[in-house]
Amino acid sequence: MVSSLDSAITASSFSDEDIAELFTDAAEINALIQVERELARVQEALQIIPNGVGKKIHESLAGVEVEPSSLASGFLQDGIPIPALLKILRGQIEPDAASYLHFGATSHDILDTALIIRSKSAIKIIEENLNTLVSKLSDLARNHIATVMIGRTRNQNAAPIVFGFKVVNWLAPLQRQQQRLNELSTRLLVVQLGGAVGTNAALDSKGTELNTSLAAALGLSPSTSPWHAQRDCIVEFTNWLNLTAGLIGKMAQDLLLMAQSEVGEISFGGTGKSSTMPNKSNPVIAETLISLGNYCRSQADLMAQTLMPAHERDGVSMATERLAFTPLICATGASIKHAINCLSSLNVNEEAMHKNLIADNGRILAEAAVFELCRLMERSQAAEYVAQACSESLTNNSHMIDELEKISAVELDWEALKQPENYLGSAKEIINKIVGNID
Amino acid sequence: MVSSLDSAITASSFSDEDIAELFTDAAEINALIQVERELARVQEALQIIPNGVGKKIHESLAGVEVEPSSLASGFLQDGIPIPALLKILRGQIEPDAASYLHFGATSHDILDTALIIRSKSAIKIIEENLNTLVSKLSDLARNHIATVMIGRTRNQNAAPIVFGFKVVNWLAPLQRQQQRLNELSTRLLVVQLGGAVGTNAALDSKGTELNTSLAAALGLSPSTSPWHAQRDCIVEFTNWLNLTAGLIGKMAQDLLLMAQSEVGEISFGGTGKSSTMPNKSNPVIAETLISLGNYCRSQADLMAQTLMPAHERDGVSMATERLAFTPLICATGASIKHAINCLSSLNVNEEAMHKNLIADNGRILAEAAVFELCRLMERSQAAEYVAQACSESLTNNSHMIDELEKISAVELDWEALKQPENYLGSAKEIINKIVGNID
Amino acid sequence: MVSSLDSAITASSFSDEDIAELFTDAAEINALIQVERELARVQEALQIIPNGVGKKIHESLAGVEVEPSSLASGFLQDGIPIPALLKILRGQIEPDAASYLHFGATSHDILDTALIIRSKSAIKIIEENLNTLVSKLSDLARNHIATVMIGRTRNQNAAPIVFGFKVVNWLAPLQRQQQRLNELSTRLLVVQLGGAVGTNAALDSKGTELNTSLAAALGLSPSTSPWHAQRDCIVEFTNWLNLTAGLIGKMAQDLLLMAQSEVGEISFGGTGKSSTMPNKSNPVIAETLISLGNYCRSQADLMAQTLMPAHERDGVSMATERLAFTPLICATGASIKHAINCLSSLNVNEEAMHKNLIADNGRILAEAAVFELCRLMERSQAAEYVAQACSESLTNNSHMIDELEKISAVELDWEALKQPENYLGSAKEIINKIVGNID
Amino acid sequence: MVSSLDSAITASSFSDEDIAELFTDAAEINALIQVERELARVQEALQIIPNGVGKKIHESLAGVEVEPSSLASGFLQDGIPIPALLKILRGQIEPDAASYLHFGATSHDILDTALIIRSKSAIKIIEENLNTLVSKLSDLARNHIATVMIGRTRNQNAAPIVFGFKVVNWLAPLQRQQQRLNELSTRLLVVQLGGAVGTNAALDSKGTELNTSLAAALGLSPSTSPWHAQRDCIVEFTNWLNLTAGLIGKMAQDLLLMAQSEVGEISFGGTGKSSTMPNKSNPVIAETLISLGNYCRSQADLMAQTLMPAHERDGVSMATERLAFTPLICATGASIKHAINCLSSLNVNEEAMHKNLIADNGRILAEAAVFELCRLMERSQAAEYVAQACSESLTNNSHMIDELEKISAVELDWEALKQPENYLGSAKEIINKIVGNID
Repeated sequence: MVSSLDSAITASSFSDEDIAELFTDAAEINALIQVERELARVQEALQIIPNGVGKKIHESLAGVEVEPSSLASGFLQDGIPIPALLKILRGQIEPDAASYLHFGATSHDILDTALIIRSKSAIKIIEENLNTLVSKLSDLARNHIATVMIGRTRNQNAAPIVFGFKVVNWLAPLQRQQQRLNELSTRLLVVQLGGAVGTNAALDSKGTELNTSLAAALGLSPSTSPWHAQRDCIVEFTNWLNLTAGLIGKMAQDLLLMAQSEVGEISFGGTGKSSTMPNKSNPVIAETLISLGNYCRSQADLMAQTLMPAHERDGVSMATERLAFTPLICATGASIKHAINCLSSLNVNEEAMHKNLIADNGRILAEAAVFELCRLMERSQAAEYVAQACSESLTNNSHMIDELEKISAVELDWEALKQPENYLGSAKEIINKIVGNID
Repeated sequence: MVSSLDSAITASSFSDEDIAELFTDAAEINALIQVERELARVQEALQIIPNGVGKKIHESLAGVEVEPSSLASGFLQDGIPIPALLKILRGQIEPDAASYLHFGATSHDILDTALIIRSKSAIKIIEENLNTLVSKLSDLARNHIATVMIGRTRNQNAAPIVFGFKVVNWLAPLQRQQQRLNELSTRLLVVQLGGAVGTNAALDSKGTELNTSLAAALGLSPSTSPWHAQRDCIVEFTNWLNLTAGLIGKMAQDLLLMAQSEVGEISFGGTGKSSTMPNKSNPVIAETLISLGNYCRSQADLMAQTLMPAHERDGVSMATERLAFTPLICATGASIKHAINCLSSLNVNEEAMHKNLIADNGRILAEAAVFELCRLMERSQAAEYVAQACSESLTNNSHMIDELEKISAVELDWEALKQPENYLGSAKEIINKIVGNID
Repeated sequence: MVSSLDSAITASSFSDEDIAELFTDAAEINALIQVERELARVQEALQIIPNGVGKKIHESLAGVEVEPSSLASGFLQDGIPIPALLKILRGQIEPDAASYLHFGATSHDILDTALIIRSKSAIKIIEENLNTLVSKLSDLARNHIATVMIGRTRNQNAAPIVFGFKVVNWLAPLQRQQQRLNELSTRLLVVQLGGAVGTNAALDSKGTELNTSLAAALGLSPSTSPWHAQRDCIVEFTNWLNLTAGLIGKMAQDLLLMAQSEVGEISFGGTGKSSTMPNKSNPVIAETLISLGNYCRSQADLMAQTLMPAHERDGVSMATERLAFTPLICATGASIKHAINCLSSLNVNEEAMHKNLIADNGRILAEAAVFELCRLMERSQAAEYVAQACSESLTNNSHMIDELEKISAVELDWEALKQPENYLGSAKEIINKIVGNID
Repeated sequence: MVSSLDSAITASSFSDEDIAELFTDAAEINALIQVERELARVQEALQIIPNGVGKKIHESLAGVEVEPSSLASGFLQDGIPIPALLKILRGQIEPDAASYLHFGATSHDILDTALIIRSKSAIKIIEENLNTLVSKLSDLARNHIATVMIGRTRNQNAAPIVFGFKVVNWLAPLQRQQQRLNELSTRLLVVQLGGAVGTNAALDSKGTELNTSLAAALGLSPSTSPWHAQRDCIVEFTNWLNLTAGLIGKMAQDLLLMAQSEVGEISFGGTGKSSTMPNKSNPVIAETLISLGNYCRSQADLMAQTLMPAHERDGVSMATERLAFTPLICATGASIKHAINCLSSLNVNEEAMHKNLIADNGRILAEAAVFELCRLMERSQAAEYVAQACSESLTNNSHMIDELEKISAVELDWEALKQPENYLGSAKEIINKIVGNID
């Protein structure tokens, strides 16, 4: 329990328990057995192994449980759990059938196919949770389509936005992530079946047929060619996971900054007491989401190091992938789930948003004012007036537009110009478009 | 010239000069000017700026050249080149029109759109070169559909393959990369236009219309929403670049190992004299390709760190992206081009492949032999005989199948079993399928 | 159990169990309690808390065990386990004393100090194992001070070395690592004690005194200043861990290449059966060591992302460090231990080394020959003769020196030139120097 | 000019020009020639090459200039510039002497030694600039030893500090960096001299002697053993560079947050006009420093991937190092220099610090209040009162201590408790200690 994803103290912070369930030792063993069982059944149907033998294997291994620790010394020796597992499984099958277990397959076929089966289940969970997140963000955006607040660029007050606009900017990339996930899934969710060096040599001419049948039996697609040493589809997927955690991290980054004491525009429900300071309420969930983003980045980067395995199969690459993949998918799952929880418990402090606008004293309307003045004078003159008005506003703690009125001495609807809600451009239109996209 | 991608000594090794051409200082400035020019022209058409003004801007800036170093102090001060550039450009335009330059836009709109224009050109180069590479690999695979060689897994001789099979395993993921590039391009090649905080507030209600028209003018698609602080499409693209360089690195890794003195199955044309050892011919091009794979991984990882910018725009993220993006795309371009050159000059030593097969003394037929014996005896018995035969073959430097014939004392077509070309499974079928895909 | 470092199947491959023992949930809780206990005891001695109270706390918490899962919801809420732990611990202490538990400290003080205590224990294990590794390498080098083999550069046969020379090149950097570990330990093994914002404000003027006394009580050094948000010493240490795993990975990389079927110069004891190919013996331990090197690199990189925390303490940084540190130290420990095991079971095949030398047919003596001929002719002439001789040797499968004798037609001690052991330069001297360093 | 470190627009932002000067093409060529010249001179002195020959080489190559682009095709072919360079240099030397150029050396000897010579010069620049930075920080800390401000943890107001305390927390790790640089320099600044495979075979028994003499001639130390394929000292150095840029990035991170519109405690001199918003002043220098920290992290990570080169020398590793090293050292240099500039132009707004304290309404004195009340009541009671007072303070926009006085109804020196400067603990003592360290 040295990983924070496994620690009884911290697992619920850093790992999605539903996805984790798919990647425990027991789940891996079950998936490995499932692949061997289906392989045998399908091989019998295709007359690759004798009549009756596939059935025997399939049935003998139903419900078989293997103690994970019984594979440990085998793994240490072989770098893969399959030889040790096969030895145990063969003991559960009548000898005449036992020798047809794992027929013509290589260990990596079973490992990879078992990985893909579980990835498919994980993707289903991820998809559902992502849908929920997208839907929550849509609701939040709809609710705040008119909540005016300060827009900030480069850590400075810039110009007015509405909170719903900020929210759809978190949402739009997640909608693209849904699209990307569909695209990559068709490439990823394929069976691995190549035998020793990928040629399915032990299957005579039946490799392709078996590939198709096994895929069907397992709810996957057949593969065009073996991918023992071509991990592009896996890395495409782990890049997707990282992208998801990163995009959620961006939402969290914004929320963390909005939760600052000096800003106070949002707060998180029920979190973060300090051990020594009763005044504090720490933004734990946002911190967790950002750290998950960091974590996923580094594990995805490690995955990218598996792109150059040697020859037909490479043990370094296999071990590296094993170290990186599972934590990455569990952490991404946690990111999505915490993001949902974060939104569920989010307190949006519209009053504080308004107060911050007031405290800005209209300086974020500088651009608006320049454009308004430009109707009456040269741009450079307008810009000069506005810069001067900003400066006076700071000095006098007065409203910038009031200062500008004095300085510019022109006639225009100063009251209208003073309202940030009049300077929101296409914000509402964009919100509606993005929120509508997913209805 | 501190980067190896810019050094006059090393640029041709680590950067694609055609792509680099798109990302020089001059090219960036030209693209920035192009966006400003089209923006003005389109804004006039949409009556966002006065009649005649857009034309004036468009024409005044035609052919204008700006010395890159004249933007240096501006960049140092602003973290972006736009304010300094605008100052210079305004000097080229009649004063009444000059104030309508860059109307309602924010610097990042121009920077991002200019990046996308050039990315589109770069993608065109990349696509063409990738097509060439795919086609070269197809030819190579076709030529070696019957070139039997040792298949190697986990750095050990494993079972026979043909060289064409190895080649299509390099090829298939690149075909998937072609598909992925199509998918991501529709997301990536969009205009950026949001104004100060993404709402296009200065454009009144014409933001969406302008987005569409500007996109059309520049050969891009309109964007659904501003992406100043949502870099998922960029990171999707840089992940694709890294994936490409990594997949090519895998080919290079295999070639490097095949070029080892002890293996000698391929050699590279005209490279790698040692300064002190006339006996050596260094596998420079393969080394370069692998190091480009490493390099692209780390730059893509840096790009992934831009996923969590703060609020509506973030200067850290902008600077980080600037540091990572260009070297990454130029290095990936170099990877593709060198891969083509590598294949063009590749010497495939079929004799050495055959010699290595002979030297293996039939031990890579161990699996074949087990499966053959299994027709006559129990699997465990078969495996034991073959293991023993492998051991005798090593000790006696004799052919494993000959030893097996002695040990097993059964009748079968030993001569046929001895031929590695009889144990190639679906290799030929897979080659044809993959090579056919791209015809 | 989603991490390969925790899985019952794979933990023994990827984690050092002795170090892991120091970083379990239970071990963390124990260390946290230990720090709180010593803090109380020392605070009483310094009259920071009332007489008798420190003793009560110290004694009441002796042997207290806290179920890790009882801290889970607290961690989820607070991002740290301390508030939940304190609540439980206070229940174990008489009320009048309980309120003096954790007096004036901040959670991070306890967490960091507990981390350092355990790091000290881990360093002790690492040091001992590193000593063993260094000593094993010394022995191996001594044993092979005269085992001539091919030296290889850029994946090509280059010139002769002895195996002991290769070994001391693995050894020398590990000796430097011993030195580096000493240097960094003095910076790393310090107490953390700063209170809420690092000023120890709650301790009046006794902060520095307490820092010193607490450090002494825990076997650490006092800290100059709080390091809640200055993680340089931690990152220096994790960089060291990564460097160690990388240097061991280099040894493994060489061994993996030497274990290739075509090279066969070493083999690993008792590892790596294939599930389908009885001819294979997979180099599992070398693969594991290289993948650990990869893994440690990415976790160390993640650690480096904690260098820029915000202000006086940063929750993102804390969580990121928690995710990266423990797996990294456990994986590095595994790397050292497996390296020892790898050497213990290593079979050095001197015969194969000799056979490969013979198979090279003297071409690796090309440099030697050039230098020898240079005594009698111009360098360019010598180089030309030798290049020609190399080429003839390849064509005729003859010894290069024999060809050279024919081509050059000069008089020299051709028999002496033919012996690779005459062209070893300072190899023996360097071996003795490095091996002697640690005697 | 595709790298931002080379671009005429951006180089001054991302690269230190003094260090860059050491790593241009011309500087590399000069250093390579310098090493060859000294090698020849020293070899003559040690009678490794004939009398007079070393002098001839040394003198003939004085002042020789080689056009970098003339080495490009050689580099592309060889992966190193040395063979092409030697060919040109030999043309500058009388033929009888020319053949003794580069005598017994391998290309990597020259490349590495030339790298170390320039690294030594770079370290000198870095040291001086780091001294300046340390000294500026000391001054800043001294000036603000009594400037009370809000201390912030986890993005929340926590408890009072002084600005000088924040500054010494940036400073202390940089002082440790000075110490670390001294330690690593003794390991790093050594000559590389090993010949073809590291044994110095071509030098007969004079390898060690030459190593010592050449080192002396170049102002370096001799090396214990060749380090062609043991890059620990280089990676130790690049980790140090990354650590430096990261620690400076931390300072910049704090400054960026302090420069937020809502905080306004510091501002940067003369930077960051927006192209469209006259109200904004962007914190460009802080953004640049953080992005340099990110950049250095990724390049250092790439360097760490060079730790596992194959056998006696590895072309992949060499190329990877070439891609990563120079940008990393130049970017770190830029980080240090910009940090100095940042401090030189920093405006510390003490008034804003005070205003933010006032706006906090004493809630950051919560811990202080708890400790004060604890003298009169149970801790839990005290904590409850204070929590209640914080809540009232927020609701009523009143001072927390005033609320507490009402709620608790006890007698104590409320006025004293209200002063944040009374709750600074050891801040001043720590400042003096750290600032004094470097006097």
